[in-house]
Amino acid sequence: MIKANPNFSKIQASYLFSDIAQRVKKYMEANPDAKLIRLGIGDVTKALPKPCVDAMAAATAEMGVDATFRGYGPDHGYAFLREAIAEHDFKARGADIDASEIFVSDGAKCDTGNFQELFSNDIKIAVPDPVYPVYVDTNVMAGRTGASVDGRYEGLVYLNSTKENNFVPALPEEKVDLIYLCFPNNPTGAVATREQLQAWVDYAHANNALILFDAAYVAFIRDESIPHSIYELPGAKEVAVEFRSYSKTAGFTGTRCGYSVVPKECRVFDENGNKIMLQPMWARRMSTKFNGVAYPVQRAAEAVYTPEGKAATKALIDGYLENAKIIREALIEKGYKPTGGDNSPYIWFNTGKDSWEFFDYLLNNAQIVTTPGAGFGKCGNGYIRISAFNSKENVLEAVERLKKVL
Amino acid sequence: MIKANPNFSKIQASYLFSDIAQRVKKYMEANPDAKLIRLGIGDVTKALPKPCVDAMAAATAEMGVDATFRGYGPDHGYAFLREAIAEHDFKARGADIDASEIFVSDGAKCDTGNFQELFSNDIKIAVPDPVYPVYVDTNVMAGRTGASVDGRYEGLVYLNSTKENNFVPALPEEKVDLIYLCFPNNPTGAVATREQLQAWVDYAHANNALILFDAAYVAFIRDESIPHSIYELPGAKEVAVEFRSYSKTAGFTGTRCGYSVVPKECRVFDENGNKIMLQPMWARRMSTKFNGVAYPVQRAAEAVYTPEGKAATKALIDGYLENAKIIREALIEKGYKPTGGDNSPYIWFNTGKDSWEFFDYLLNNAQIVTTPGAGFGKCGNGYIRISAFNSKENVLEAVERLKKVL
Repeated sequence: MIKANPNFSKIQASYLFSDIAQRVKKYMEANPDAKLIRLGIGDVTKALPKPCVDAMAAATAEMGVDATFRGYGPDHGYAFLREAIAEHDFKARGADIDASEIFVSDGAKCDTGNFQELFSNDIKIAVPDPVYPVYVDTNVMAGRTGASVDGRYEGLVYLNSTKENNFVPALPEEKVDLIYLCFPNNPTGAVATREQLQAWVDYAHANNALILFDAAYVAFIRDESIPHSIYELPGAKEVAVEFRSYSKTAGFTGTRCGYSVVPKECRVFDENGNKIMLQPMWARRMSTKFNGVAYPVQRAAEAVYTPEGKAATKALIDGYLENAKIIREALIEKGYKPTGGDNSPYIWFNTGKDSWEFFDYLLNNAQIVTTPGAGFGKCGNGYIRISAFNSKENVLEAVERLKKVL
Repeated sequence: MIKANPNFSKIQASYLFSDIAQRVKKYMEANPDAKLIRLGIGDVTKALPKPCVDAMAAATAEMGVDATFRGYGPDHGYAFLREAIAEHDFKARGADIDASEIFVSDGAKCDTGNFQELFSNDIKIAVPDPVYPVYVDTNVMAGRTGASVDGRYEGLVYLNSTKENNFVPALPEEKVDLIYLCFPNNPTGAVATREQLQAWVDYAHANNALILFDAAYVAFIRDESIPHSIYELPGAKEVAVEFRSYSKTAGFTGTRCGYSVVPKECRVFDENGNKIMLQPMWARRMSTKFNGVAYPVQRAAEAVYTPEGKAATKALIDGYLENAKIIREALIEKGYKPTGGDNSPYIWFNTGKDSWEFFDYLLNNAQIVTTPGAGFGKCGNGYIRISAFNSKENVLEAVERLKKVL
């Protein structure tokens, strides 16, 4: 008898963003003329930067000619892209990361979801609360948790991110083996200082733990004192894997490219406490289960690092950050105390009400789609996440509506 | 302590095609002027069909304009592509598959590798021998096998594909729960008749088993009596998942698109023998761990189904099949008895020698790269796989060289 993976039955019935989509659909059916403004799901809205489009178009043309056609690419990404990444995203910031430590993929969601495959099932995992649901759900599917009780899975250690700790969780009191961190944070928009990240790196060394560091929103950092990569910190290469994405950096949500960094020094352990290097494991996982990113897409990603690409992506992010500032200031004007929106596209604030109730209130009264904080975890109860991904025009209109109903 | 997945240590040290690449690299270092002809790895060599290139270029241009830009696509693929697939690949062949049963992905390697996540770890799995290594390695990584002993993993049931059964394995004598099948076969090039496939479908019903049917090479079928889809057979929808790919059909190895078919009737079971529908499980898996295929790539795949796309892909495949015929006939002329090469791009033949020894002989004496059959399993010992993926000019040259050294 072919038996189902029993862990799937533990997962909450639906993915947060599917829930939201259902509510929005229902509202639109009842109000077909409503002019919705979507500040919910973190999907970008502005065109792909011209240097990326041009590079993708040129590579597409190459694919149409026998002499320049490319079939399977190198297992872990083309050298032109891996080298550009190492140079511009790391070496330029003083982080000693080599092209051989870069693994190009179709996005950080896949990588953060798949990486848990490399670990034993009997490890203790810490996740922030609120949290990007992918970290949790993929471990549930793999059988590393118990049942969901009162909104939290048994067996996981939740790291509370609250206004008391400025949404940067404290080190856990109990010993954990694997730690998911995301800065700039989704959903809170909080950033971690050098000192705060160093404490996590030191914790990982002291406890033989590993950090999975999601830096998908790094392009939004404007405060230069904030680390862009965990590898800017001494000792991080042994104990941390980093995930990056072009989705938010360069508007690639519909183009699909990202990468993982697995330094050659990065280690895990076998049952007897002997070191095992993580890089060959990830290399093998990717060679076995993945077949690379489309050549034209890798060329588009490479274009992000040209002078024109850097200027275009900076302008893109500046636009979203300007939106974030407008939303943030409107909320402050209305007496809320938002976090994020300065080094992040997300604004996070306590509504003083139930998250879903507030979500419905904004949908019904202002025709604005947001994300209920409760969807990201218990500590998100009462919070709302507003995303700055939209046109300035729509954001200005949304702020006018917000001011009327708040 | 962060512990590694202990199952990774069971996997054979390297992936078959990495082994080959190493030997070729060594040879080229010693013989830098050799003019190699690569008929090894199944990578296509001819340009992407013009209708696909044009569609991809147009969609890339759309991505460069705010008004037509697309971010995250629908979870399981754009309707335009899912509907074209259902219509042309299934309904047109009398297989009643609906667009909602299609899940667009970045390729059949990923899908055939990931699908095992949906099953319990205590199932009995049957794999053909010889076999595409991904089916086996992904189950080893997941912990569904014992150690590798004498080239076979303990716990798996191997279905011998030999010249005695025309490389279509017989039903297993012991009861199995999950069966991997691939027709036209990689590596043997064999095809299965309606009667042979029906026997597997009936077996799956009788034994509450499930079939994972890999049809990545379907475009090479020229014998119209051979089923193109397992869903052409009565009863298959309840017991089979099918995987397709544009890699070989339309030269997408470097463009990356494929799909899985999970019919709504398809079932697995819980611990107590209650039916669980498989489709929502795969939907959830993909929503949680995957973020879709690039919009321009989905447009390129859609173009395969236009009249121009159909003509162009047929011409592409015809060219490779002509190569296959040339190779096949040369081998017959030299006294070998090859299989495949008629409804498949692969020619498979018994060399009468050790596979790797013969591989080295062809590399050293004819500068031709092939694939040693032993790399696909015990039953491949003594065999060589030759791929027809190259230009006609190179194939003619290769055949001249073969004739001299065989």
